[in-house]
Amino acid sequence: MTEINWIQTYIAPLVHAPGAEDLRDDVALLSSNGATIATMDTLVEGVHFLSADPIDTVGQKLIRVNVSDIVAKGALPSEALLSIAWPKTRHEGEFKDLMAGVQRDLEVFDIALIGGDLVGTDGPLTLTLTLTGDCISARPVRRSGGQPGHALWISGEIGWGGIGLEAAKSNGEAGLVRRYRVPQIADIEAAKLVAEHASASMDVSDGLFLDAVRLAEASQCGVELNLECVPLAKPTTSLDELFSQCSAGDDYQVLLAAAAHQTVPGFTKIGELTESSGLRLSFRGARVNAPSILGFEH
Amino acid sequence: MTEINWIQTYIAPLVHAPGAEDLRDDVALLSSNGATIATMDTLVEGVHFLSADPIDTVGQKLIRVNVSDIVAKGALPSEALLSIAWPKTRHEGEFKDLMAGVQRDLEVFDIALIGGDLVGTDGPLTLTLTLTGDCISARPVRRSGGQPGHALWISGEIGWGGIGLEAAKSNGEAGLVRRYRVPQIADIEAAKLVAEHASASMDVSDGLFLDAVRLAEASQCGVELNLECVPLAKPTTSLDELFSQCSAGDDYQVLLAAAAHQTVPGFTKIGELTESSGLRLSFRGARVNAPSILGFEH
Repeated sequence: MTEINWIQTYIAPLVHAPGAEDLRDDVALLSSNGATIATMDTLVEGVHFLSADPIDTVGQKLIRVNVSDIVAKGALPSEALLSIAWPKTRHEGEFKDLMAGVQRDLEVFDIALIGGDLVGTDGPLTLTLTLTGDCISARPVRRSGGQPGHALWISGEIGWGGIGLEAAKSNGEAGLVRRYRVPQIADIEAAKLVAEHASASMDVSDGLFLDAVRLAEASQCGVELNLECVPLAKPTTSLDELFSQCSAGDDYQVLLAAAAHQTVPGFTKIGELTESSGLRLSFRGARVNAPSILGFEH
Repeated sequence: MTEINWIQTYIAPLVHAPGAEDLRDDVALLSSNGATIATMDTLVEGVHFLSADPIDTVGQKLIRVNVSDIVAKGALPSEALLSIAWPKTRHEGEFKDLMAGVQRDLEVFDIALIGGDLVGTDGPLTLTLTLTGDCISARPVRRSGGQPGHALWISGEIGWGGIGLEAAKSNGEAGLVRRYRVPQIADIEAAKLVAEHASASMDVSDGLFLDAVRLAEASQCGVELNLECVPLAKPTTSLDELFSQCSAGDDYQVLLAAAAHQTVPGFTKIGELTESSGLRLSFRGARVNAPSILGFEH
C-alpha cells in the first residue's frame, strides 16, 4: 500500500470542490465560508505512536498534528470533531487520561470540541480529529504559490522529532522522549506570519528535505537549501548527522516561501525556490549530494 | 466501556460551543456559519459491518449513516472528509472497490469529498467520515424542541435493518441482506419536510423504541406510540415480532415531532409526545407493556 499513490489514483478523482485542491494540499477550504478551512488526521497505535506512550500525550499529539496543518496555512484553529475507536481491552482510567491530554491541548490552542464519535474495536487504538481553522487573510496559503527566487524560511528547529523517537525507543532522556510524544509545533504567532508573508506554506511533518521538495513541486519550482543555515536540534558539522535530522519526520514546523525582500521575524532563512526543478544542497558554499532517502514516505 | 456514559463523563465537559449542544445531539453547528452543520461517524470491521460484506457496500454504508444524521436535522449533505485506517493485509483491488462504493453514494447524495487521511493499521478496517450539511432553514432541527401534544411521525419503514442483519448472518435472501449492507435511508425530500414541519427530529439508528425515548427525553416529555400505526418492514399482529422490528437498529429513518395540526406528506403518524415521562405503548386501543430491551445500546 503506497498511500500517496492510492490517494491520487482512487480518491482524488472523486474530488471536485475547488477548495479541496485535488487533495494536493494539507487542508480543505470549506465552501460554506470562504475563510474556514478543515483538516483531518488519524493516529493509529503502533504506527503513529507507541503502545507504551503515556496516553495523555497521545491525545496531545492528535491535537498538535492537526493544529500544525492549520497554522501552516495562515489560519487559527477553531473547532474540532473527534472520533475514537477504542480497544475493548483498555481500561476506563486510560480513557480518562486520554481525554485529559485532549483537554489540555484544546485549551492551549483555544479549540472548541464540537462533536465526533466513539466506537469499540478489537484492533489498535485509532484516533481521528477533524479540525477547522479561521483564515487570518481572505484565504489559506497553499503549497502552490511559490515563485523562483522566493526565499524559504523555517520556524523553530529541525530534528527534534527524529531524535525524540530514537530516545523513546531506547529508554533515553525524558526531555528528549517528550519531544517525540508531545511535539513542540509552530504556534499561533507563526500562523500570523504565514498570513502576512508567505506565498506558499506547509508544515514539515515528513522531514525537511522531502517536504521542501513537495512545496517546490506544488509551486512548479526546484529548491536550493543552504545546509549551514538550517536551525538544527543538535547543531553539527557532520553531513551524516545533518542529513539524519533533515530527513526525520514529526517536526511539525512551518516551511514557507516569501518574496526575496521580505523578512519573517523569528523564522530562519534556509534557501530559495529555483527555476530548475529538483533539490540542490550546499554546505558552506560547496555543493553536496542529496541523501537517497529524503524523508518519511508513507 | 459504556460509550454514552463515557462521552458524557469525559468528553462533554470539554465541549463549550453552543453549536455542540453538549454532545447531546447528532450534529454540531459550525460557528463559522450559522447554517452549516457537521457530523462524524466511524465504522469498524467486525463491529459495524461484517468482514464478509462486499467492500463497496461498506463505503456506501459509511456515507449513508452520516447522511442520515444530516437529513434528520433538516439539512442537505454538502462536504465530506474521509479517514481510512487500512489493514496492511488487504489488497489494492479491495481499496479500489471501497472507493467505488464511496463514489457511488457521493454522487447519489450530491456530496463533495474535500479531504481526509489514509493510514495503515495492523487492526480491522476503520473508516471515519466527517460530513457537513447546509441547513434548509436558519438552523438545524434539534432533538430538544418537542412539546407535549406534538405528534410523532416516521419516514419509510421500520425493521429492515434488523431483518437484513439476520439474513446476512444466515446466508439469507440477497435482497434482504442488501437492506442491511446498504440501508435505504431517508432522502433529501425528508430533509425538506423536517425543515418545514418538525419541532424536534433525529434519525432512528438504534431502534425505534429507544430513539423515540431519547427524542422525548431531550424534549423533556414522555412518548406514547400506537403500535398498529408503525409502518413495519414485515407487517405482523404478533407483539413479539413487532417488538423485534421496533427495537432493531440500522433503520436510518427520520423520527420527527410536529404540532398536532400539521400533516407531514409521505411520513406516518405513530404516536405523540406526552406530559408524563417514559414510554407508553398501545396496540389497537389496549395498553401493552414495553419490552425489556428497547434498542441497540452502545
